[in-house]
Amino acid sequence: MNGVTGPQSAIILVHCPDQKGLISAVTEFLSSHGGNIIDLDQHVDATRGVFFMRVEWDLAGFDIGRGEIGQLFGETIAGRFGMRWSLHFSDEIPRMAVFCSRLSHCVYDVLARCQSGEWRVEVPLIISNHDDLRPVAESFGVPYHMVPVTPETKAEAEARQLELLKSFEVDFIVLARYMQILSADFISRYPERIINIHHSFLPAFAGARPYHAAHARGVKIIGATSHYVTTELDAGPIIDQDVTRVTHKDSVEDLVRRGRDLEKMVLSRAIWHHLGRKVLCYDNRTVVFG
Amino acid sequence: MNGVTGPQSAIILVHCPDQKGLISAVTEFLSSHGGNIIDLDQHVDATRGVFFMRVEWDLAGFDIGRGEIGQLFGETIAGRFGMRWSLHFSDEIPRMAVFCSRLSHCVYDVLARCQSGEWRVEVPLIISNHDDLRPVAESFGVPYHMVPVTPETKAEAEARQLELLKSFEVDFIVLARYMQILSADFISRYPERIINIHHSFLPAFAGARPYHAAHARGVKIIGATSHYVTTELDAGPIIDQDVTRVTHKDSVEDLVRRGRDLEKMVLSRAIWHHLGRKVLCYDNRTVVFG
Amino acid sequence: MNGVTGPQSAIILVHCPDQKGLISAVTEFLSSHGGNIIDLDQHVDATRGVFFMRVEWDLAGFDIGRGEIGQLFGETIAGRFGMRWSLHFSDEIPRMAVFCSRLSHCVYDVLARCQSGEWRVEVPLIISNHDDLRPVAESFGVPYHMVPVTPETKAEAEARQLELLKSFEVDFIVLARYMQILSADFISRYPERIINIHHSFLPAFAGARPYHAAHARGVKIIGATSHYVTTELDAGPIIDQDVTRVTHKDSVEDLVRRGRDLEKMVLSRAIWHHLGRKVLCYDNRTVVFG
Amino acid sequence: MNGVTGPQSAIILVHCPDQKGLISAVTEFLSSHGGNIIDLDQHVDATRGVFFMRVEWDLAGFDIGRGEIGQLFGETIAGRFGMRWSLHFSDEIPRMAVFCSRLSHCVYDVLARCQSGEWRVEVPLIISNHDDLRPVAESFGVPYHMVPVTPETKAEAEARQLELLKSFEVDFIVLARYMQILSADFISRYPERIINIHHSFLPAFAGARPYHAAHARGVKIIGATSHYVTTELDAGPIIDQDVTRVTHKDSVEDLVRRGRDLEKMVLSRAIWHHLGRKVLCYDNRTVVFG
Repeated sequence: MNGVTGPQSAIILVHCPDQKGLISAVTEFLSSHGGNIIDLDQHVDATRGVFFMRVEWDLAGFDIGRGEIGQLFGETIAGRFGMRWSLHFSDEIPRMAVFCSRLSHCVYDVLARCQSGEWRVEVPLIISNHDDLRPVAESFGVPYHMVPVTPETKAEAEARQLELLKSFEVDFIVLARYMQILSADFISRYPERIINIHHSFLPAFAGARPYHAAHARGVKIIGATSHYVTTELDAGPIIDQDVTRVTHKDSVEDLVRRGRDLEKMVLSRAIWHHLGRKVLCYDNRTVVFG
Repeated sequence: MNGVTGPQSAIILVHCPDQKGLISAVTEFLSSHGGNIIDLDQHVDATRGVFFMRVEWDLAGFDIGRGEIGQLFGETIAGRFGMRWSLHFSDEIPRMAVFCSRLSHCVYDVLARCQSGEWRVEVPLIISNHDDLRPVAESFGVPYHMVPVTPETKAEAEARQLELLKSFEVDFIVLARYMQILSADFISRYPERIINIHHSFLPAFAGARPYHAAHARGVKIIGATSHYVTTELDAGPIIDQDVTRVTHKDSVEDLVRRGRDLEKMVLSRAIWHHLGRKVLCYDNRTVVFG
Repeated sequence: MNGVTGPQSAIILVHCPDQKGLISAVTEFLSSHGGNIIDLDQHVDATRGVFFMRVEWDLAGFDIGRGEIGQLFGETIAGRFGMRWSLHFSDEIPRMAVFCSRLSHCVYDVLARCQSGEWRVEVPLIISNHDDLRPVAESFGVPYHMVPVTPETKAEAEARQLELLKSFEVDFIVLARYMQILSADFISRYPERIINIHHSFLPAFAGARPYHAAHARGVKIIGATSHYVTTELDAGPIIDQDVTRVTHKDSVEDLVRRGRDLEKMVLSRAIWHHLGRKVLCYDNRTVVFG
Repeated sequence: MNGVTGPQSAIILVHCPDQKGLISAVTEFLSSHGGNIIDLDQHVDATRGVFFMRVEWDLAGFDIGRGEIGQLFGETIAGRFGMRWSLHFSDEIPRMAVFCSRLSHCVYDVLARCQSGEWRVEVPLIISNHDDLRPVAESFGVPYHMVPVTPETKAEAEARQLELLKSFEVDFIVLARYMQILSADFISRYPERIINIHHSFLPAFAGARPYHAAHARGVKIIGATSHYVTTELDAGPIIDQDVTRVTHKDSVEDLVRRGRDLEKMVLSRAIWHHLGRKVLCYDNRTVVFG
């Protein structure tokens, strides 16, 4: 469990070229300083020769201060093995911005999870290109910023959005059926920190109107896909997917209705994994530790 | 699709002893009066010798007035075949009461679907034995009635609940993780009109603390079950079920968290079927037309 | 159930322009001749304005002889409504040819179901472009015909295959991971009677090496798709699909291994639906009655 | 992947009281002797305070001889931490006995996987209380031993079975829908080495005729469960489970038919996990490493 009220712990995420002695070095570093490992998961991508690891340990009894862990780990371990790594603490509360358009189902689901305490996250603001969901945001007490977007004003709108994200100190962004395409520049400011939900089983039916395309093709299963946004549309690293059976009886409207449930579940699971520091990206793929 | 904004249509639900000529008689009745059938589904339970049918037809061009359909159908068809039947109209908007306790996830999900227009239903009130979810109800603008229940005051509390249900003209009741057991008398007032969500894959783990029991047994899949309430606990006719995989890594708290998503989806699907007049009960089982 | 040992029954499959009185006319035809309907399923494609129906009735007590049913139905009902229709009898045993290459899993699964009596079907021969699976065929007592295929000899090979199919009076063909692409001419001889299994969730990853493509894309779910073969590769009407979850831990070899189970299940379900006369094709989609 | 043709590797499975330094000690042992870890998975059951680990490493470059690994690990690591452990080599080929009765689907599926090379396992014999499946066994070239069982001759029959198992040097037993209950004495000879498939979603519908019970209860999902056999009927540690949706249309015979596919898949997945040395039992639960 990476629960809301667990003990105070630290997490290190690592990837580097595969080589002997990696796990031993990291775990020896932790145990020699009194760290009790709560969870360790590792993966070797044999084809690419890359090693991935997530290790979480209890800070009680650990004899290095929070402020020194990173520096010491970097000097003694990470440097030696050429690791790319990051350090997190379980009591940090990330700040998540929600972008939406006119569809409410993902917004309701995300805000309900935040408000009920299911997730340990702050939602300092919602940004939308329409005003439709303002009442939803207000009923949850979340500030709502309408930033209209037209082809002509897109650059300006993104500048305004970035300004808002900066002033609210946002850590990552969730596109909750936000129907606009973000510019490469915008995306580059939040690498692996913009989570989108696409309403199809990618790579099938990328782009617009996937339920119409699925119906036309006569598929027997529809899906939804959450992924990190990259500059190529609907082609970023996939975090989670799910599907449901449909039949000839389901009209396009039925697919839309049934897809909503998939979308909100898959988006929320992706956010959950992201919040738990479970996701590593590499080569446009994700490692999602269990 | 049994959609929110479809054409005005009528629905007849039927069950009776199986015999020759049933479908022919009903469809001839409709077509001879100019009714175009939108959807027809039938089922024969060969073991029990029972016939079930749901037929929905467009009222445009139908030459019998709404007020006379029932009487005419009863006299000319239902009587002849010994049918138990009911007649519904797609533009009727049922009134649903939500009972809850302290857990919010199903309440959020149900109210969001109502407010967003996904469902064609009125929620005139929420009844709870605790005050915890009053803010949730209020944020959705739904009146909230707290009716405390203790072993000593249960009869009195139910009397108060029944009074509320009557005065708000409630058609059916949804128990959204309401943790109290209803009396036989209460249940008898709303036969096949009280929908419960149980947090296990029934009949496994009926009763209290099913996630603890599932964890103790070491199952690899957990589930949730929506059913009509009968006097035997967790034993009424099942409307829908769903499951999700778990592993040895999932603690009881993980099962609770992951089960919440199952619960809200399964409950909402049951309500959807009920609203669409898709469910027939017989012999403690359901026929759920597709 | 469309079981192996049910009562002797007849099945009519119909599709035609949607219009009033269709169900009534067909069911009146049956009941007026003493036919008891065992199963009736219908579907209206509202967008395309097309009506589909499958009706199965008990021949005991039906007062029209087997040989006359078709003519009478054609004259009195089908002509009037412009129906395309077909008539089948539950005691007819279709003859199925299995085409394979070197992979055995689907062949084992199909032959085991035939030999154990799970399916009511004859397999008069297996055709392969390799000799690898001859021992498998022989262990099940099925004649095995090796017809090598090279780019140069393809026309000749197909002529030989068609000759075999004709002489063995084959009704339909199953491509059990047969790796060759059939010519348009060949396909035109068995319209909606060649069932293929493709090892991906179509339309994703059509064509060659779908597991490699799925791995490269980093999907979290893989699938398999059974469909009728048309001249466009992997684009025919889908009969059934299924999926399974994968993770970053699964190598391409794991996807291949896990996909085998999907492939054999999805192919066998498609054959089951086909044998039960449950499938109607229209506009490159299928109606698969339940 | 724990594939059929991977590199030569060794596997250690461990469980012991949770304590600091466990992973570090084991991985240091391996890396200090030149072992490159291919896969490491660990789990801490926080409630029970138990640590579980599976580590697999490449024997190429490992400087301890195969014959000495166990002794050295036992002396230097296992003893220090109070570990229960076992050592395996990827090139060992386990010997599996298949017990069956009259139903063939699991037997076909298991033997096809063995014969096609999907699994690295020997099947030296099949034991059955009936003669029905002798032709199946013979077509796969596997010796078939009929050992009739009656209430009066059960002890004698088990003695004969044990004799056969011993003489064929069987490592573990698969009950492929073998309908007899084994005695406590028999079970005690093969602890955590008898795999059963039960045709329900345990703990629902333990015991006889689970499909009839599932149909009577009106469930919307049926399942199958593979587990290690213990003296309590259908109550041993669960290895894997799977489910499929059913509807009111499915008769008991349909459940039986559809359940067969579940049974053979779930049984085969359990055997796969067992063969890969992925399963640890503790407290009547399993840890199944991914």
